[in-house]
Amino acid sequence: MSNTIDFYFDFSSPYGYLASTRIEAIAERYDRSVTWHPILLGAIFKVSGQAPLTTYPLKGDYAIHDFSRAAREYNTPYNHPDPFPISTVAAARACCWIKASNETAVVATLAPFIHATLKAYYVDGRNIGDAEEVLSIAESIGLDKHALAQGLADQTIKDALKNAVNQAIERGIFGSPTMVVDSELFWGSDRLEQIERWLSRGGW
Amino acid sequence: MSNTIDFYFDFSSPYGYLASTRIEAIAERYDRSVTWHPILLGAIFKVSGQAPLTTYPLKGDYAIHDFSRAAREYNTPYNHPDPFPISTVAAARACCWIKASNETAVVATLAPFIHATLKAYYVDGRNIGDAEEVLSIAESIGLDKHALAQGLADQTIKDALKNAVNQAIERGIFGSPTMVVDSELFWGSDRLEQIERWLSRGGW
Repeated sequence: MSNTIDFYFDFSSPYGYLASTRIEAIAERYDRSVTWHPILLGAIFKVSGQAPLTTYPLKGDYAIHDFSRAAREYNTPYNHPDPFPISTVAAARACCWIKASNETAVVATLAPFIHATLKAYYVDGRNIGDAEEVLSIAESIGLDKHALAQGLADQTIKDALKNAVNQAIERGIFGSPTMVVDSELFWGSDRLEQIERWLSRGGW
Repeated sequence: MSNTIDFYFDFSSPYGYLASTRIEAIAERYDRSVTWHPILLGAIFKVSGQAPLTTYPLKGDYAIHDFSRAAREYNTPYNHPDPFPISTVAAARACCWIKASNETAVVATLAPFIHATLKAYYVDGRNIGDAEEVLSIAESIGLDKHALAQGLADQTIKDALKNAVNQAIERGIFGSPTMVVDSELFWGSDRLEQIERWLSRGGW
């Protein structure tokens, strides 16, 4: 059994944000770590035949109401962002650049960078679809803004993200957030309690 | 506040079946009753732009795995049916006929008929897309098979189902199961625990 919980999310997914604020505490209670996997739903939807959640009639209205309601339940700050959805290529590539670093101190900023970027979008209303915002957030947590700017344009980093998305598709990931626990996929922030029950019972 | 939980479902929805086995116990714990609303997802999907869950690449595979896993968690009997999905017009019309009856004893068979029909499909592998199966199930719980057969062909009953589906759409229902509690929509059998928290806290 792997001792990690794989956490797949798109930065433009409100449910991904909501789950991101709770997954580490859950993992810690069961001596697990969290491995963060930013993905691009746009690329995945081409395979799965889906469209952005809020573009569906009826379902989209429900989702927008539910984002805030789900946030309120756990006292999670949430301001539905505008513009929404956005391209999250820059934010996701920044994660690939952080992961690919030779410096342990840089690699250690992955989770702080993810939390800071999600908060910037879902709480502070900053448009993280804009690479300049991403660079500014990276700088605020101590990363080298200029090195990251070069990284975002680096073909190795671009390929790393493409490969990560393809690997997610091969694993069957189709939505955000998806958490993989003991090789089992759980899709949706509303499955966090089920994941806790899975961890406490050792599966079923 | 309404004292009922409105339970919208399609007979061809495994998550609708799973939730149907638990919703009455939840309602009872909070002095609520359950009002059953069979709907036709096919008609709703034309409005919402969705397709049957299991037809989506990746998402469909996950769903088929998850139906059984979700059932196991609560020791709910589940055998993924074949054929699947099916037309549920006959079963849904039968519910409309039961609801429209002048006889209290017939109206009282609504929940038993729903449970028997869902069990026939998801446990015993009977094709409830076939009107003959629906009539046979109705007879087994004491309903007049011949009167129901006439009812299924009755324009008033056909219109009642159409109206019920249109009313569901107007209410924003797009999936099965959807539960309406205190005018709040909750979509998905994985929201039952959230509904319990809503009921116990009186909302949030």
